[in-house]
Amino acid sequence: MLTDPAPTGHAATLPDIQATPDTRGIALDQVGVRDLRYPIDVLDRAGGTQRTVASLSLSVGLPHHFKGTHMSRFVEVLSHYQGEFTMRTLPALLDELRERLDAEAARIDLRFPYFVEKTAPVSGKSALMDVECGFTAEDTATGRDFVLHVAAPVASLCPCSKEISEYGAHNQRGQVDLEVRPVQGGDGEPALIWFEELLEAAEAAASAPLYPLLKRTDERHVTMQAYDNPAFVEDIARDVAGHLIEDERVASFRVHVTNYESIHNHNAFAQISWAR
Amino acid sequence: MLTDPAPTGHAATLPDIQATPDTRGIALDQVGVRDLRYPIDVLDRAGGTQRTVASLSLSVGLPHHFKGTHMSRFVEVLSHYQGEFTMRTLPALLDELRERLDAEAARIDLRFPYFVEKTAPVSGKSALMDVECGFTAEDTATGRDFVLHVAAPVASLCPCSKEISEYGAHNQRGQVDLEVRPVQGGDGEPALIWFEELLEAAEAAASAPLYPLLKRTDERHVTMQAYDNPAFVEDIARDVAGHLIEDERVASFRVHVTNYESIHNHNAFAQISWAR
Amino acid sequence: MLTDPAPTGHAATLPDIQATPDTRGIALDQVGVRDLRYPIDVLDRAGGTQRTVASLSLSVGLPHHFKGTHMSRFVEVLSHYQGEFTMRTLPALLDELRERLDAEAARIDLRFPYFVEKTAPVSGKSALMDVECGFTAEDTATGRDFVLHVAAPVASLCPCSKEISEYGAHNQRGQVDLEVRPVQGGDGEPALIWFEELLEAAEAAASAPLYPLLKRTDERHVTMQAYDNPAFVEDIARDVAGHLIEDERVASFRVHVTNYESIHNHNAFAQISWAR
Amino acid sequence: MLTDPAPTGHAATLPDIQATPDTRGIALDQVGVRDLRYPIDVLDRAGGTQRTVASLSLSVGLPHHFKGTHMSRFVEVLSHYQGEFTMRTLPALLDELRERLDAEAARIDLRFPYFVEKTAPVSGKSALMDVECGFTAEDTATGRDFVLHVAAPVASLCPCSKEISEYGAHNQRGQVDLEVRPVQGGDGEPALIWFEELLEAAEAAASAPLYPLLKRTDERHVTMQAYDNPAFVEDIARDVAGHLIEDERVASFRVHVTNYESIHNHNAFAQISWAR
Repeated sequence: MLTDPAPTGHAATLPDIQATPDTRGIALDQVGVRDLRYPIDVLDRAGGTQRTVASLSLSVGLPHHFKGTHMSRFVEVLSHYQGEFTMRTLPALLDELRERLDAEAARIDLRFPYFVEKTAPVSGKSALMDVECGFTAEDTATGRDFVLHVAAPVASLCPCSKEISEYGAHNQRGQVDLEVRPVQGGDGEPALIWFEELLEAAEAAASAPLYPLLKRTDERHVTMQAYDNPAFVEDIARDVAGHLIEDERVASFRVHVTNYESIHNHNAFAQISWAR
Repeated sequence: MLTDPAPTGHAATLPDIQATPDTRGIALDQVGVRDLRYPIDVLDRAGGTQRTVASLSLSVGLPHHFKGTHMSRFVEVLSHYQGEFTMRTLPALLDELRERLDAEAARIDLRFPYFVEKTAPVSGKSALMDVECGFTAEDTATGRDFVLHVAAPVASLCPCSKEISEYGAHNQRGQVDLEVRPVQGGDGEPALIWFEELLEAAEAAASAPLYPLLKRTDERHVTMQAYDNPAFVEDIARDVAGHLIEDERVASFRVHVTNYESIHNHNAFAQISWAR
Repeated sequence: MLTDPAPTGHAATLPDIQATPDTRGIALDQVGVRDLRYPIDVLDRAGGTQRTVASLSLSVGLPHHFKGTHMSRFVEVLSHYQGEFTMRTLPALLDELRERLDAEAARIDLRFPYFVEKTAPVSGKSALMDVECGFTAEDTATGRDFVLHVAAPVASLCPCSKEISEYGAHNQRGQVDLEVRPVQGGDGEPALIWFEELLEAAEAAASAPLYPLLKRTDERHVTMQAYDNPAFVEDIARDVAGHLIEDERVASFRVHVTNYESIHNHNAFAQISWAR
Repeated sequence: MLTDPAPTGHAATLPDIQATPDTRGIALDQVGVRDLRYPIDVLDRAGGTQRTVASLSLSVGLPHHFKGTHMSRFVEVLSHYQGEFTMRTLPALLDELRERLDAEAARIDLRFPYFVEKTAPVSGKSALMDVECGFTAEDTATGRDFVLHVAAPVASLCPCSKEISEYGAHNQRGQVDLEVRPVQGGDGEPALIWFEELLEAAEAAASAPLYPLLKRTDERHVTMQAYDNPAFVEDIARDVAGHLIEDERVASFRVHVTNYESIHNHNAFAQISWAR
């Protein structure tokens, strides 16, 4: 049985070490908490709210003259803001972080499984598929930054293997990691882009989408669809990039495609960064 | 843009390879799907329902004379049963798996972050803390098996370090992994044990609990509480074991305690298995 | 700059808390260190020695009347035994652990990347491929136990997809996890089984092996080889099992096959346990 | 038993899809292989060579007019260069990548466990401790880039907890992630900086170093050393930064410190980026 120490004096009488001055003259870009898991609600394109579990980091910039930040306040703010986390609500959270932590810059990073209902292409059967998504939002003295993250799972079929073989073609699961920064309107609001749109862009560039539930008629369909749409890891990266470049809501992006090669015990990848 | 293959004939006309006979004479203990993520609801002790995200595996035993199982049916059953996953509802899910997959044995394994509201010991401030929990449930020809899993995070302070040093004592985060099999009543129902009870047993055996949110008065309290309650990894394992042995609802358990040693770049562990 | 505390008195004068008596009456199955990384040498079938890096756990059983074990001695023994870790040298390491830790039972678990030279099937080009391998060795009052671990990476091509589609077939990387316990001879020595043999058994049961280096002629070969040898996850498990059952050096095994399905965002698996 | 397809025609007759022209007008920043494990040799400060196992990525930039790169050549080059990987040998590897892949830019990323011999502070006993290290080296049209990576494990003791508590102080393992870019001399060679120096800089900024092997006299020493040197995550980041800023061999760096808080189930972190 745990025993407790004798009662403590008033909090007001405890020294506040973090608030003492610092003389090293070195400011911190970010100081905060990370690897914190919390239940959150995110909006989905269908108009509903989706409850999921995020892994978060919350941080602020620390001026050179403060010794430390008050870490518990991050959790207090998070606890207060549990509920909707979206492009629309993050600004208020960042404002509260800056105010509570007495900081010029504040930042939040979230990653969470996001569920999309996928309907099988022939049988019409549907179920949920997980897609790892996230946001990074940051307020600094010079403005606001906002980035969407999607790790879209796809299938790829090798064009070389198809061309040089009499039959068959190696194919595999792949992942399209997207970091997309929306343009900001005159009001500073980022353009609205849905995770679903980014997933669909990745799927359109791949050999075939993935599904949670496929009956035999569906399996036949996606097998032949992949064979009809061979794509190198380079092709997927380029087609996603081409799609995003044409989307006027996109200010910049990084696309990183990984193929879990079914003929090797290592992976192939391709990466493109772009800014308007 | 993905192109689609020409339309497929009727599903009924596609051969069912999985259902063809197998002559190797080797039965499979488990065949199914794993690493599947799905949103689920679990009951909590406070009487509410908690929505979280599980990583699941679902499987059946496959008799030696069948070539394969029908993997899509696992997802169909899961999709049908999304909702409450508890000791009370898992039997029906297992029954449906056995029926749909034409199998004698069925098994489900879930792991998910479970959130408990923790109140700081002095300030009374509360927030949610994640604890990795789970169930394994299995139906076989000889009966039903049910096991609870909790990975309880705790703090430990080294008794040796405290004793031999003039001041201070090394301490660290640790994890108490519990697998607990409840006794079954005359009706075959497992005794009800809450995740919260297992977390509390782990915390009571450790040097101090962990909290999501501690103010300075709380930090003072837990610092001194840990110093007042030194515990080796061996002590934590034994005290949890002793507690569970005295609990008549427990048929058997395995406790595995890991300390992420703050003086080493490796971990210390202790493990006890026990059956009534 | 770190400052050091004042010099310490003689070690002999420091109390030994671990050696104090314990009255809870609960023995520990295992107590020790884990997640320790160390460079090791393993023998390979070609007759050479391979230097790699292992993640290890080392433990002993602790009788109910001792409070704790002396964790530093595990690292002393390991440090002393760095060098060859094989079926032939582990007994002496276990003996030293039992003696130094004053224990009846001792156990060591190692996992490490093991490199096999793979020659491409047509071009004859060769390079190294990593395979995660390991040992578990345990000495108890009732005898010695020894288990080999191999996580063999392979390719699988779906028989159903091939049969029902007009062209193509989904395929993917998979992993065959093998735990194999050799029979023990009259002298207590386990029969000699090489990691390479277990890898080859997994590859023979799969649709095609993986390679580190394939030129176009090789890629054509393995593409068609996989198409010519479709195998469900169930088939791979059964064929590996059938092979091991016929091997008289094998006392028992568990085979667990995972396919990283290229049409789903989850995996398929099959598992068989067997003992002679 | 795997069956093989009929023999293949000459490689020369197989089409080279990767070499076909591409008309999308989108160049790729990086295309190559990743998550490849290979045994490597690295030099250590003591003048010896250390064999370890690296996880690598190798890539080139791909001009907009080529459809794809020839992935097998990365492994051929790697296989050719197995042996010493250091600041001195990476340029030749990058040159060969650029030549074999017909590319203007080439890049290599390695991460590997590196072992340092650590001597316990009082007993003088020594053993090896693993530190995750790495290099990134990149050649582009505008020059050469080279970055060292070290993930130094350390102990930290909380100054606030020490100050506000009557006895004890929470402490924990932490990690100091360093990315350091050396200045380049007139000959384009990066200044020589050893992993050991970066590890020592991290340890000096922390509350105490970690050790693989500590006897009781040593444990007493490091316990009191940590208590005598309390440091917030902010302090460690600043002291490492201050040290690197004064080192004229350093052109720029990023330091990211994580504390695995022993009072919370989440981590604290601080980060500083700097360029001369």
